[in-house]
Amino acid sequence: VAQRLEKFKTTIFTQMSILGNKHGAINLGQGFPNFDGPDFIKEAAIQAIKDGKNQYARAFGAPELNSAVASRFHQDTGLVIDPEREVTVTCGCTEAIAAAMLGLINPGDEVILFAPFYDSYEATLSMAGAKVKCITLRPPGFDIPLDELKAAVTSETRAILMNTPHNPTGKMFTREELEAIASLCIENDVIVFSDEVYDKLDFEMDHICIASLPGMYERTVTMNSLGKTFSLTGWKIGWAVAPPHLTWGIRQAHSYLTFATSTPMQAAAVAALEAPESYYTELKRDYSEKKEILVKGLKEVGFEVFPSNGTYFVVVDHTPFGFGDDVAFCEYLIKEVGVVAIPTSVFYLNPEEGKNLVRFAFCKDEETLRSAIERMKQKL
Amino acid sequence: VAQRLEKFKTTIFTQMSILGNKHGAINLGQGFPNFDGPDFIKEAAIQAIKDGKNQYARAFGAPELNSAVASRFHQDTGLVIDPEREVTVTCGCTEAIAAAMLGLINPGDEVILFAPFYDSYEATLSMAGAKVKCITLRPPGFDIPLDELKAAVTSETRAILMNTPHNPTGKMFTREELEAIASLCIENDVIVFSDEVYDKLDFEMDHICIASLPGMYERTVTMNSLGKTFSLTGWKIGWAVAPPHLTWGIRQAHSYLTFATSTPMQAAAVAALEAPESYYTELKRDYSEKKEILVKGLKEVGFEVFPSNGTYFVVVDHTPFGFGDDVAFCEYLIKEVGVVAIPTSVFYLNPEEGKNLVRFAFCKDEETLRSAIERMKQKL
Ligand SMILES: CSCCC(=O)C(=O)O
Ligand SMILES: CSCCC(=O)C(=O)O
Repeated sequence: VAQRLEKFKTTIFTQMSILGNKHGAINLGQGFPNFDGPDFIKEAAIQAIKDGKNQYARAFGAPELNSAVASRFHQDTGLVIDPEREVTVTCGCTEAIAAAMLGLINPGDEVILFAPFYDSYEATLSMAGAKVKCITLRPPGFDIPLDELKAAVTSETRAILMNTPHNPTGKMFTREELEAIASLCIENDVIVFSDEVYDKLDFEMDHICIASLPGMYERTVTMNSLGKTFSLTGWKIGWAVAPPHLTWGIRQAHSYLTFATSTPMQAAAVAALEAPESYYTELKRDYSEKKEILVKGLKEVGFEVFPSNGTYFVVVDHTPFGFGDDVAFCEYLIKEVGVVAIPTSVFYLNPEEGKNLVRFAFCKDEETLRSAIERMKQKL
Repeated sequence: VAQRLEKFKTTIFTQMSILGNKHGAINLGQGFPNFDGPDFIKEAAIQAIKDGKNQYARAFGAPELNSAVASRFHQDTGLVIDPEREVTVTCGCTEAIAAAMLGLINPGDEVILFAPFYDSYEATLSMAGAKVKCITLRPPGFDIPLDELKAAVTSETRAILMNTPHNPTGKMFTREELEAIASLCIENDVIVFSDEVYDKLDFEMDHICIASLPGMYERTVTMNSLGKTFSLTGWKIGWAVAPPHLTWGIRQAHSYLTFATSTPMQAAAVAALEAPESYYTELKRDYSEKKEILVKGLKEVGFEVFPSNGTYFVVVDHTPFGFGDDVAFCEYLIKEVGVVAIPTSVFYLNPEEGKNLVRFAFCKDEETLRSAIERMKQKL
């Protein structure tokens, strides 16, 4: 294995899903719904396949999808962008992240990351040869320590990689935090990579896209996908929105990483992005109910549950149960209790910082959530 | 744009397809069929979507697909491999190539490439920081200059990246050539990356998988995909077969480049790989007819046509028509004649070497091929 990937293991999501399957555990680990996506989108995919939309899409996205992404971005931010020059369709947001790092970051470039972080950030920054500085968000609120951030951003800084709503914690960046990041970026000529795949799962406050702040669009890569919003994580349709000078680098990397993503799924993604507002209202109502069930249950089980404002995850402190660390706890949870959660220590540069925390996902039907809680009540 | 990608342009396939569309030209450029894939595979995809196979696949491939790839590899090579540890499913062969380079090649590692080469090879080697040595295959036969190859492979060499049947030339590596490569690799402890996406389009001789040669499996990454064999280039299902120690690096990179490729398309790929032998026989018969039409026509137009033994491409010398170079010729061909071909100079480290050659694709229905020939006869 090449040095750039030597320190990384099989992704924790894969490890935990495989171990969970082996032990017949209920999977509240990896973030995929155990229910299906909407019929109108599935119908659109089926129609595209029947209609023969089965050859290579245009490398940077089927024209209709680029346009649909631009309209959605306009609805979300008020900004008018050029679908032909500012949108790149990728194989899920995971590829958008990889393409942004490999396409825009040079070896030795300094990039600031917030821990805990989605694991692909560190791995793709390593592929790009970046020098990573990490700012830790701490429970209970996972607020950004603005003084630490100010001290970290210098003229050496090339980029900040952020994620709001934030996986794994459910934290949403506040307007004040985003404004602080924006002014640091403008002052120090820093670009922002913003992973906003959970933007439509904003429960306790409204999501704010950092690109919509004054002076930020021109220095921001906003990344998103179909999977979380439309409960179709297996379709692998993601995208990056960025001004032309940044889009250029992303497209270069994307062209040679995958060339293009699935054509019929791109056609269906157009239908998805045309969903009426009521779709999102219902989605949020459904998820609010699931969240309430999980949060209430986890509290009853005896966890300290930290507030989650967005995403379909909640993070808890497992130390009341007396296990050494998050990995030991999660292994016990799978093997003896029959529930999968995700240990968070892999999401920190310094694993010690995550050893008290584990993440549960509530993108599951209510019965599954209730059974998992029941198992924990009985066996923890 | 990051330095690693600075020298690369928008892929030539994208450039030419866009220019061709603008001028209403007949596209014999980018290698995608203008006819649809088989119904039985499309039906399998539709069924998978209906059945709710719409969430993340296992990162390294849906178990059934890993098994189907292993069986096919067994049929093709006689080798028995472990689908769980030696197969990685990727977003097309393009991602398999990127994952192999980023997962297995360190900065400064020397890799040998044959020119002309598929453009993603050079770009992904640049992402990996490899030192590239290039051996040029020359018309008319595009044979491997074995003496040059022997001189090039030293103890410094980490890998050889090869492609048979060969895009763009249609050359198929002979048993003698493959044996020479194998013995050089074994002698110098070199690994092989072998892109074999056109393996089922072997017209004039039988395809030989280099991994099947004695001592080679343990040092070979064999890459393939669904797109060319099943006329579904837009589905983006590829894979890499390699021994566990090489698979490990590929999976690491793949996990963070895309995580997984489309789940319903993976289910359909299983159906595809179970196609009866007659499917391949018919495919080859159909393509032989198309090839004959194109080759005969190009000769009548006045090109020197080089023999193509495999793939759905033929390379010709355009110099009888008196244009400066391949790019100038292809631009004239699109704008004034209304036919898209691919200039080959971008497939060489030294573009000069390709300036007489252009590539035509015959993965088009007969009428399209005949109309393109007609246009060239009238306007060239
Ligand atoms: C790509 S697997 C991880 C899915 C996910 O987003 C998560 O569980 O955090
Ligand atoms: C991925 S676009 C290129 C398609 C192809 O394989 C070719 O035309 O050579």
